[in-house]
Amino acid sequence: MKLLRHVAAIVTLIVLATMVADATDPGSLQDFCVATNGPAGVFVNGRFCKDPNLAKAKDFFLSGLDIVRNTNNPVGSTVTPANVAQIPGLNTLGISIVRVDYAPNGGLNPPHTHPRATEILVVLEGTLSVGFVTSNPNNTLITKVLKKGDVFVFPVSLIHFQQNIGKTRAVAIAALSSQNPGVITIANAVFNSKPPISSDVLTKAFQVDKSLVQYLQSRSWWINN
Amino acid sequence: MKLLRHVAAIVTLIVLATMVADATDPGSLQDFCVATNGPAGVFVNGRFCKDPNLAKAKDFFLSGLDIVRNTNNPVGSTVTPANVAQIPGLNTLGISIVRVDYAPNGGLNPPHTHPRATEILVVLEGTLSVGFVTSNPNNTLITKVLKKGDVFVFPVSLIHFQQNIGKTRAVAIAALSSQNPGVITIANAVFNSKPPISSDVLTKAFQVDKSLVQYLQSRSWWINN
Amino acid sequence: MKLLRHVAAIVTLIVLATMVADATDPGSLQDFCVATNGPAGVFVNGRFCKDPNLAKAKDFFLSGLDIVRNTNNPVGSTVTPANVAQIPGLNTLGISIVRVDYAPNGGLNPPHTHPRATEILVVLEGTLSVGFVTSNPNNTLITKVLKKGDVFVFPVSLIHFQQNIGKTRAVAIAALSSQNPGVITIANAVFNSKPPISSDVLTKAFQVDKSLVQYLQSRSWWINN
Amino acid sequence: MKLLRHVAAIVTLIVLATMVADATDPGSLQDFCVATNGPAGVFVNGRFCKDPNLAKAKDFFLSGLDIVRNTNNPVGSTVTPANVAQIPGLNTLGISIVRVDYAPNGGLNPPHTHPRATEILVVLEGTLSVGFVTSNPNNTLITKVLKKGDVFVFPVSLIHFQQNIGKTRAVAIAALSSQNPGVITIANAVFNSKPPISSDVLTKAFQVDKSLVQYLQSRSWWINN
Amino acid sequence: MKLLRHVAAIVTLIVLATMVADATDPGSLQDFCVATNGPAGVFVNGRFCKDPNLAKAKDFFLSGLDIVRNTNNPVGSTVTPANVAQIPGLNTLGISIVRVDYAPNGGLNPPHTHPRATEILVVLEGTLSVGFVTSNPNNTLITKVLKKGDVFVFPVSLIHFQQNIGKTRAVAIAALSSQNPGVITIANAVFNSKPPISSDVLTKAFQVDKSLVQYLQSRSWWINN
Amino acid sequence: MKLLRHVAAIVTLIVLATMVADATDPGSLQDFCVATNGPAGVFVNGRFCKDPNLAKAKDFFLSGLDIVRNTNNPVGSTVTPANVAQIPGLNTLGISIVRVDYAPNGGLNPPHTHPRATEILVVLEGTLSVGFVTSNPNNTLITKVLKKGDVFVFPVSLIHFQQNIGKTRAVAIAALSSQNPGVITIANAVFNSKPPISSDVLTKAFQVDKSLVQYLQSRSWWINN
Repeated sequence: MKLLRHVAAIVTLIVLATMVADATDPGSLQDFCVATNGPAGVFVNGRFCKDPNLAKAKDFFLSGLDIVRNTNNPVGSTVTPANVAQIPGLNTLGISIVRVDYAPNGGLNPPHTHPRATEILVVLEGTLSVGFVTSNPNNTLITKVLKKGDVFVFPVSLIHFQQNIGKTRAVAIAALSSQNPGVITIANAVFNSKPPISSDVLTKAFQVDKSLVQYLQSRSWWINN
Repeated sequence: MKLLRHVAAIVTLIVLATMVADATDPGSLQDFCVATNGPAGVFVNGRFCKDPNLAKAKDFFLSGLDIVRNTNNPVGSTVTPANVAQIPGLNTLGISIVRVDYAPNGGLNPPHTHPRATEILVVLEGTLSVGFVTSNPNNTLITKVLKKGDVFVFPVSLIHFQQNIGKTRAVAIAALSSQNPGVITIANAVFNSKPPISSDVLTKAFQVDKSLVQYLQSRSWWINN
Repeated sequence: MKLLRHVAAIVTLIVLATMVADATDPGSLQDFCVATNGPAGVFVNGRFCKDPNLAKAKDFFLSGLDIVRNTNNPVGSTVTPANVAQIPGLNTLGISIVRVDYAPNGGLNPPHTHPRATEILVVLEGTLSVGFVTSNPNNTLITKVLKKGDVFVFPVSLIHFQQNIGKTRAVAIAALSSQNPGVITIANAVFNSKPPISSDVLTKAFQVDKSLVQYLQSRSWWINN
Repeated sequence: MKLLRHVAAIVTLIVLATMVADATDPGSLQDFCVATNGPAGVFVNGRFCKDPNLAKAKDFFLSGLDIVRNTNNPVGSTVTPANVAQIPGLNTLGISIVRVDYAPNGGLNPPHTHPRATEILVVLEGTLSVGFVTSNPNNTLITKVLKKGDVFVFPVSLIHFQQNIGKTRAVAIAALSSQNPGVITIANAVFNSKPPISSDVLTKAFQVDKSLVQYLQSRSWWINN
Repeated sequence: MKLLRHVAAIVTLIVLATMVADATDPGSLQDFCVATNGPAGVFVNGRFCKDPNLAKAKDFFLSGLDIVRNTNNPVGSTVTPANVAQIPGLNTLGISIVRVDYAPNGGLNPPHTHPRATEILVVLEGTLSVGFVTSNPNNTLITKVLKKGDVFVFPVSLIHFQQNIGKTRAVAIAALSSQNPGVITIANAVFNSKPPISSDVLTKAFQVDKSLVQYLQSRSWWINN
Repeated sequence: MKLLRHVAAIVTLIVLATMVADATDPGSLQDFCVATNGPAGVFVNGRFCKDPNLAKAKDFFLSGLDIVRNTNNPVGSTVTPANVAQIPGLNTLGISIVRVDYAPNGGLNPPHTHPRATEILVVLEGTLSVGFVTSNPNNTLITKVLKKGDVFVFPVSLIHFQQNIGKTRAVAIAALSSQNPGVITIANAVFNSKPPISSDVLTKAFQVDKSLVQYLQSRSWWINN
């Protein structure tokens, strides 16, 4: 019996120890719910919360969004997120931000969607050509050239992009209406999924022949966000 | 004064007459809100409602979802919607359905997203290869072959498709979790927007050269939903 | 100590093993949240999620909705659900479907409500008389006869029914705007709750005498959904 | 032309004059949205708002909830609502209250549901037997006797009732989680809709013969809320 | 092996035993979700649920809201809550109530906000002067004197108060549109936080000198709700 | 009759002309709903929408967020908003941003709440001392010193502030989880409402004497946001 009691105590410790990291929600039901993991292997829609009495200022804090990022990659841009994965205090609060660095002469944040967020972007440096495309049947491209201090809105789930059309680097801060907005980069999802989408699907979808689809699938993609 | 009273009466009639068709909402605040137009040129998020005391059975009704559709088009599929545009009683109620017909030997409902809806599909006839791709960074393709009576789920905003891999026509009924789910066909939004997305953006996004992008943009697209 | 380490390992296995089945949510905060159980005896509003990296196509799949059901029961109908209980991938996604089979000559899906869902129904076979009743004070019956290919909408929480008025069997597919819509069959909830509602309540509510209430309570009810 | 200008002015007045009364919403997007009518014949999901700068204290006010109501009616109860129809300031705010008076010796608030609200009730006077029934398949009756100062909760959309089991009158205040909760009195909706539900439906639903259904339909119903 | 089985059984008991107290949600996804604790140290946004099959009438019940409270404290009022902390059945259902007792001659429920709820109040006894202040830039005070039977609405998140201006005690019942509405008493949050807000902030915010801020911070505050 | 037709035409023009400016909503039911006014004097919860086919890039655009603002005012800060009032395309999309300029040596964004938004702030320049206070009963101050590139979160509805503690000016960009977040500056709402809150309320709330309350009320307040 004594052994069993020891075992029980250890089990309690294990259970507590395994509870260190993962759960958000669609609206806060309390002042805040700082994200943390639940028991190992247990997940909820969003993230579990830290004991609210243990919340600290650092749970609501992140540094380094002023650091210029390396954009030496195929698309010429780098996205630095500040969402619930980086700032656990954002859990359940429905907002996050990102810093985007764009290489000079064409650095591109390629066409993508955020399945759970509208984006509002402010240019800190440089000149961007930005746009989004409306849904069927119109597929209207709404586009604009932005300079320092300009603000633009990309409505939730619509395909959008930004490209640096200046000769110097560009930087933007963008806010997103979710603590976990998600990103679907069109080129990656369509031509570089794992496993690949059948070339029968893609040849008919893009009205091209199979060799071209295979060429598109063979390009090496870069996930910048 | 008498003339003016007549005018007033006529004006009231005109105002009423112009109120014949356009407005939904994120959750019903009453038994139902049958969609109708508001005053000419006035729009709300969703649609205006018909006087609830004038609601009729036909406002909640549509016929013809049993009719086999012509799929003689480039992608080999036709989507027949039954959403708030066809059934005004769906307004504010958060659901709709579609019938999809697929041509034999490859008829395709090409890669697309619904910005405001999850889809659940049941096969009535034929054999479909279906799939959806998860968001970054994994871009996992979740795929399955479906036969008559099989059901599959496409989570909200993810890129998905269905292709008839049988030698006979296929038919499915799919339900969507919005009265106005929206459709973004990837090929159309990316390569056939009006005006077109700059080829500078697309060459870098797909890591191909400009002539290939122009070729992709020159293909004639078919909006089947 | 070595024994205890073994015990600890086993405990971890047990904890993981017991996590195989139970938790949804009002809107997805991630691509999807495939339902699974949490630790034994632990529940959340909705269901816990499977590790998203372990999601498989079968989590989004169900077969057999083409199979004709036996309707040899008192009400002459059978409802075959495809909700989060059958398709764990529906968790948090706000939609589900059902197949309903109706016996010839009066097979009835009796008056009921869905506390969390609007229903949209399409007739695959046969002829149905359907209806719903608006709330107080009007209690208007909105009713329609439906044939193959006809679609009808039953707004959330309103009492509704379908009856086969043809001489052959009837079949419908209906979609519901919740992954867990719930069903309250009026006759069962009012006259066959466990324990029964006091006959004092029912005699006054229905303005009849106690023997009639007792007769109504003595009828054997059939839960077909 | 001068006449026309007069007409135009009058028309403007008419349009303004007809805007005096009808529109709520699922969450306030501003401090408040005091309900008012929109243009004649124009409706939205919920109600239009008064110009916020014209809001007055009386828009948020109602008097008389202390007045004892007459309960001399077939069910022996009277519900006095204080929702958006009585207090326009409640529009978009998601809450309302009612006063319920119960006659001595059985005064009944008969089995009903609120399609859009949970109810929490506090007894001011008397002794009530209350209950609600869970959904299929269990249909469990959760029931309790309440005295002065007792509080009870009736979850959204579930069938519930209260009966005065004391020899003196009873009074309760109940709050509902909607500015327009709606009421479906089961007896009225099932046996006294306009037009009536087909007796074929009701005989099969309640497993009784047609004459009994007709008897139930012939009882005169009383809508007390 | 037998020992290990015993250990496993005990572990299960421990896990169950530690699950006794804490989790709500933004909308019920089932009939109800009676609040309970999850595993020790594990929290979700809101509260975990009790096994729904174990729900009892007492989970939806509270007594004693008729008891007159002692208001012998600095502000002269006492708030008695009936929210998810007192009635676990309120979890996920979006509503709660409070009783407020006010001392004669000025008993005050001091200026405060509910971050997650609109309040609707009915006066049971006495005479209250109540008010709320709109947001910037107007900061309009909407105020009214209430007598027995009067009802008033305080919109979500706005600063509001009630004061007994009669010579006898006053009592009110108020309903709130959340199971966990939260309270921020302005005086306490601004002048008595732990640790205190820097006097540099407060001197500039209130345009007064530091000694006055320190005097305000030195007053002993009373949290009555 | 001809005259009347002219009148009708003019009336239509008038109605159209008066529809130029005012209505948002809690979630977009379409790609976007660019804010505009409805008919004169008619309001909805949020704003009316422009005809979606007339949406232009400028509806989603604002310039000038790079311009340094004058902070020569009593609190030493200036808030420059970019919400639905400045960018009509933000309507229904649940997000907005602000630029805040802080004077050197103590420039303060004084204690305030946003009734409908969480805020996430990134420092572009300078050094800020920031904080928020949790709700009752703890009233814990969560505080942090932020430098360039640092990010901090202020949860929805909690009282918060930022003060420039450096010797040079400071600048921040902050995002808010609403297109119309609202601001309640505590000092203004409590001590400078129109009309003023009764000094009886304030003397008891702050536990000070009437002359001190009158002094606090006599200070001239500055609304900087």
